[in-house]
Amino acid sequence: MSTIIAVETSDIRFPTSEHLDGSDAMNLDPDYSAAYLRIRTDSEDGLEGHGFVFTIGRGNDVEAAAIAALTPYLLGQNAEQLLDNMGATWKSLVYDSQLRWLGPEKGVMHMAIGAVINALWDLKAKRAGLPLWQLLSSMTPEELVELVDFRYLSEALTPAEALQILRQAEPGRAQRQQQLVAEGYPAYTTTPGWLGYSDEKLIRLTKEAVAEGFKQIKLKVGAHLDDDVRRVRLARETAGPNIRIAVDANQRWEVAEAIDWMRQLAPYDIAWIEEPTSPDDVLGHAAISRGVAPIPVATGEHVQNRIVFKQMLQADALQVLQIDAARVAGVNENVAILLLAAKFGVPVCPHAGGVGLCEAVQHLSMFDFIAVSGTKTDRMIEFVDHLHEHFVTPVMVRQGQYWPPTSPGAGNEMLPESLQEYSYPEGPVWAAKSGLQHVG
Amino acid sequence: MSTIIAVETSDIRFPTSEHLDGSDAMNLDPDYSAAYLRIRTDSEDGLEGHGFVFTIGRGNDVEAAAIAALTPYLLGQNAEQLLDNMGATWKSLVYDSQLRWLGPEKGVMHMAIGAVINALWDLKAKRAGLPLWQLLSSMTPEELVELVDFRYLSEALTPAEALQILRQAEPGRAQRQQQLVAEGYPAYTTTPGWLGYSDEKLIRLTKEAVAEGFKQIKLKVGAHLDDDVRRVRLARETAGPNIRIAVDANQRWEVAEAIDWMRQLAPYDIAWIEEPTSPDDVLGHAAISRGVAPIPVATGEHVQNRIVFKQMLQADALQVLQIDAARVAGVNENVAILLLAAKFGVPVCPHAGGVGLCEAVQHLSMFDFIAVSGTKTDRMIEFVDHLHEHFVTPVMVRQGQYWPPTSPGAGNEMLPESLQEYSYPEGPVWAAKSGLQHVG
Repeated sequence: MSTIIAVETSDIRFPTSEHLDGSDAMNLDPDYSAAYLRIRTDSEDGLEGHGFVFTIGRGNDVEAAAIAALTPYLLGQNAEQLLDNMGATWKSLVYDSQLRWLGPEKGVMHMAIGAVINALWDLKAKRAGLPLWQLLSSMTPEELVELVDFRYLSEALTPAEALQILRQAEPGRAQRQQQLVAEGYPAYTTTPGWLGYSDEKLIRLTKEAVAEGFKQIKLKVGAHLDDDVRRVRLARETAGPNIRIAVDANQRWEVAEAIDWMRQLAPYDIAWIEEPTSPDDVLGHAAISRGVAPIPVATGEHVQNRIVFKQMLQADALQVLQIDAARVAGVNENVAILLLAAKFGVPVCPHAGGVGLCEAVQHLSMFDFIAVSGTKTDRMIEFVDHLHEHFVTPVMVRQGQYWPPTSPGAGNEMLPESLQEYSYPEGPVWAAKSGLQHVG
Repeated sequence: MSTIIAVETSDIRFPTSEHLDGSDAMNLDPDYSAAYLRIRTDSEDGLEGHGFVFTIGRGNDVEAAAIAALTPYLLGQNAEQLLDNMGATWKSLVYDSQLRWLGPEKGVMHMAIGAVINALWDLKAKRAGLPLWQLLSSMTPEELVELVDFRYLSEALTPAEALQILRQAEPGRAQRQQQLVAEGYPAYTTTPGWLGYSDEKLIRLTKEAVAEGFKQIKLKVGAHLDDDVRRVRLARETAGPNIRIAVDANQRWEVAEAIDWMRQLAPYDIAWIEEPTSPDDVLGHAAISRGVAPIPVATGEHVQNRIVFKQMLQADALQVLQIDAARVAGVNENVAILLLAAKFGVPVCPHAGGVGLCEAVQHLSMFDFIAVSGTKTDRMIEFVDHLHEHFVTPVMVRQGQYWPPTSPGAGNEMLPESLQEYSYPEGPVWAAKSGLQHVG
């Protein structure tokens, strides 16, 4: 047995707002950040569990405080007891009767639980000597069902139905794992399409994306209709007819506005419209889905939990489901969401980018392919080529594919140098900039 | 002109878990708490703005950190510019492009914005020399519409429709204000019904509630069906047929379970079933509403924002709408929700209790009566007789009615002695208990 002897939280921020990387119609000047967690035990193996919440700058300290508030669930605890019963561990955190008031199951506190859960999965995978996707894909259907909290899901997905989905995929696991290693998992890129980029940069980056083998690119839209029409047209002309072009409004629109706006973009053959309106608006997304059909509606990076995803599926409010590694309460809740998507037959195309989101979420898509949906059809993982150099196991994306990581762990671990360099506000990068900051 | 020169946040906790006051099926051992905010200006009037978020213990420090993260929006700012443009002030906080990522518009960060907005309203009302209900009721329909952010609401409520509702109520304002002062505003009490209380205590407190003039009591349910049937039966026998008895499951049930459970309680003439399931589950509440009709479904104390309330109304998922003073982003968002409820013709019966929620929310119901819905029919404010002694202007509830407060302000201000005494963890009450604490 081993005991958790250290829990460190840190506030890590990258000054990305300097270059407008990551700019869109709602997020004007993000400083990509991570509220970061590191768990150490007294085991002789020296293995650590790392996890994080991605934020875009201000408030990263609030998120770090929320993670720190969960320390009593870790420090001094028996590590095996937590790791061997991840379903029970998840519930003990989510149903803390006092902390639950701060959500319930949403926002700062829920994401903090996600960081803890993901750090524990990182440790569990390292102890198993496997990358997370492989660890999950080696668990029995019964063990996987044990991870899921079915509370508030039962009219949409029962444990028996979940078991059936997983059992149906079980015989093909080995074959699909070989296929994954041989073929990779499809990626699409958002790199060309940030709103702050010039037309020239958009065209150049679109050409590069096609040359690199991506079959889909994504453009940010929603600020000015004329600009959007021009940018989408330029991208279509540059990419040609065989590349899928998705657009992403980052919650900018009203329901009717989304439908009208998309009518103007529809001639350019749009692969999906992402986040047309508030991520809380199930009924609004359902109305938009009816109004823009056959263009699929995609959402999920800001969908707070499995309960809202359940309703999105029940109401046919989305046709592409975008999980995020660090928005819901970690791996367990994402397993629940993958099962819901499989039940409703909706493809999962994860949100990624940010800090470490690509590194983390690829494991879930690969697991989905091997052990849940059993297919890569209409599925792909977002790729943004930012900040991977700060991770111990950066993603490998080549020929438009994510290639399955082989290092043990969940992909969350940042390099110690980066953790030190970008620590906020005392790290050297921020100390040097401190004269330039306006709002803390 | 005056400048905000001090912004203080504090972590205030009351050790209520010692007596199981406030216990229910989900909240087993709450320590009623407030993440508290105090704003001072350099004005010679010496007036301060106070606001808070109510929590139930652990995590109150996280909420205080979130409020502190908003300090740059206050400290050094021109107070009049903020107070004279409360609609714009609300938007500047809610649409901070970086902080928004932590929600958006939900949980810890959104409630923190609520504390700031409510503190500013407290200051604004004090400067006007009016209690908040009267200040709001003296604003023109146009000024009130300016307070509301219609983003994500437009297909349910437009500015023009809001204006029409307010104008329709305008001619009767003076008459209804007189009526309010003469009659009070109906209260109901939850004091008899906490889950941790014995049958004897339930019977005694029910008798007292009836004797005090309350026309409705509420019982917590959802832990054990047999207990619930017995407790509801005892309450009905004690109260007689003319007192309304509502029940509150505090999110304990699945959809089908809620419908089955309520079938067992229906013979006792139930006034409403409150929080039958997850507050995020619009479609679930709609299904329960159909399944338990004609018993109304009530919810709202954990509904995160106006967008979810909009959907609850669109889907006929609730028949009683329960606003909370400290869950959404303050007075402005609650004005939006009151307007939505008026548009859909649904009565608003606020959640209260906790710490200071009665003191704060009564202003909104009184304003609703005078200037929005124009009626008290089927409307009442929850009353729990806890912790009022810590407030500068404690509620006056007599003969089963809230009596309109006359002191200037929004009712949020706690006594300086209480702030000091219950400060966590260093205040004398907690310092004395520190040997007994388990989880920090």
